[in-house]
Amino acid sequence: MLKQLLEGTFRCPPQTTRSCSSNMADTWQSVMDHAVAVARKAGEVVRGALTEDRKVTTKSSAVDLVTQTDQAVEQLIIQSVKEKFPTHRFIGEESVAAGEACVLTEEPTWIIDPIDGTTNFVHSFPFVAVSIGFSVSKQVEFGVVYSCLEDKMYTARRGKGAFCNGEPLQVSEQKEIQHSIIATEFGSSRDPEAVDKIFISLRNVLSLPVHGVRGAGTAAINMCLVASGCAEAYYEIGIHVWDVAAGSLIVSEAGGVLMDVEGGEIDLMSRRIIAANNKTIAQRIVQEIASFSPPRDDAPPLKQ
Amino acid sequence: MLKQLLEGTFRCPPQTTRSCSSNMADTWQSVMDHAVAVARKAGEVVRGALTEDRKVTTKSSAVDLVTQTDQAVEQLIIQSVKEKFPTHRFIGEESVAAGEACVLTEEPTWIIDPIDGTTNFVHSFPFVAVSIGFSVSKQVEFGVVYSCLEDKMYTARRGKGAFCNGEPLQVSEQKEIQHSIIATEFGSSRDPEAVDKIFISLRNVLSLPVHGVRGAGTAAINMCLVASGCAEAYYEIGIHVWDVAAGSLIVSEAGGVLMDVEGGEIDLMSRRIIAANNKTIAQRIVQEIASFSPPRDDAPPLKQ
Repeated sequence: MLKQLLEGTFRCPPQTTRSCSSNMADTWQSVMDHAVAVARKAGEVVRGALTEDRKVTTKSSAVDLVTQTDQAVEQLIIQSVKEKFPTHRFIGEESVAAGEACVLTEEPTWIIDPIDGTTNFVHSFPFVAVSIGFSVSKQVEFGVVYSCLEDKMYTARRGKGAFCNGEPLQVSEQKEIQHSIIATEFGSSRDPEAVDKIFISLRNVLSLPVHGVRGAGTAAINMCLVASGCAEAYYEIGIHVWDVAAGSLIVSEAGGVLMDVEGGEIDLMSRRIIAANNKTIAQRIVQEIASFSPPRDDAPPLKQ
Repeated sequence: MLKQLLEGTFRCPPQTTRSCSSNMADTWQSVMDHAVAVARKAGEVVRGALTEDRKVTTKSSAVDLVTQTDQAVEQLIIQSVKEKFPTHRFIGEESVAAGEACVLTEEPTWIIDPIDGTTNFVHSFPFVAVSIGFSVSKQVEFGVVYSCLEDKMYTARRGKGAFCNGEPLQVSEQKEIQHSIIATEFGSSRDPEAVDKIFISLRNVLSLPVHGVRGAGTAAINMCLVASGCAEAYYEIGIHVWDVAAGSLIVSEAGGVLMDVEGGEIDLMSRRIIAANNKTIAQRIVQEIASFSPPRDDAPPLKQ
């Protein structure tokens, strides 16, 4: 029955719903309830920190920023989960930056970006998200993205739809790329070869032409904008699994599709993504992307 | 005294404040109060229209969009002003598109963009503004930008500061371009020569490097983000006077500066703008821009 539960094919017979409280499906629901509560708490901390001085340091490049709040919020989430679900594993942006492995196993795993949009956070630019994906058997079971300056709580559970503040989400029905808004980002790499390809792709997409190109400055919120029908698609090369684990389920549960930038199946560790309202739009974007492959999130660390 | 009033040097002695109700300074205040009220009403109409089908047509290019709501909201504003201030003149985006002259005289003139961010409006992308600037003697006397999906009312009156929902605004104190967020847009021109220059400028700015490049999809809101300290600067070539008349005063009253993209004095009819937190950042951006000159807003119409 566990396999059925994980694949979402198990259903409680209506008359026995109450007696199902201890089954695995309900276990994931209680885990998700905890994720929503801790994301809201984390968002309060983020909002509170906006009134304080934000000490900024850099990671992979001069524009890959991190603050003490990123680290504190990740620890807040991890500690709270460890107390309640001591066997669960974690992939957290700041833990990985501090040297922990980024390996997705079959085990229940929390995939956490404490502040998606750290640059926005540093500047009080209004799109900042707490992103929590939860994976079992390497499949995202639920996703929670809390856009904490907008106070919008986006949630999705596999097979059960996507919601914003409790209202169901539905992707746009648009099938014409020329009538679409496309979201993307420049990312934090300033490697000239990568920047070349990012600009080639961007110009190709813009010149289709599309209605517009936008970027909220956070992958998680860009994906929620796709799920909400405000943008037809989001694509990016260079993102990490913690940026997109939650958002990817929110898009697919809102009726959208996920695709690799070369048109194959999505691989959340590959650092490449297209999240679109439908396959037609996704495949049209594939044709315009000058693709490249950054080091995978689960690549073994380079020898010193 | 009129000259003093217009230059903002006149002050009522405190003990006579009540008796000043009929002077020109208070006249402009009552005009501004009307602008705020009509912008809020217009914003309600815009929000209401989001639940309806939006019939889209195009203007200067396949991605320069207009809806019936743009036209209806502009008429709503103009009619309401005509009833209250019958001698005032107008420059309105949709009236100009319909063939009216775009000439700024010494007379009191309302400069109106009924929906700044029409593409966002069409897609329910969350940045849509009603923008109203009011000019006397060719100088913007007050500016009102109502970001109607966020319910944020930005206002500024010359010499009296800038506000958002009544809270005073202050630009960022950042003087290092490398620590800045820069807002800009691709605009609605798809002329390859213009697009070339837009991409050259963008890549130059991105590679300084800056913390990030963002674009809300509306000039008015980009400028309000600068006034709020969320972005250090906004630049664009191709905007129109109705996009920036109100926002330019909001930026300068929040402590920021306005500059032409080649470093000279701003000319609101020139379709070129840098709005920055300070002169250092503005001048640094000037160095990175591949400038060009679209036809001026007040150019005589081309002969058929």
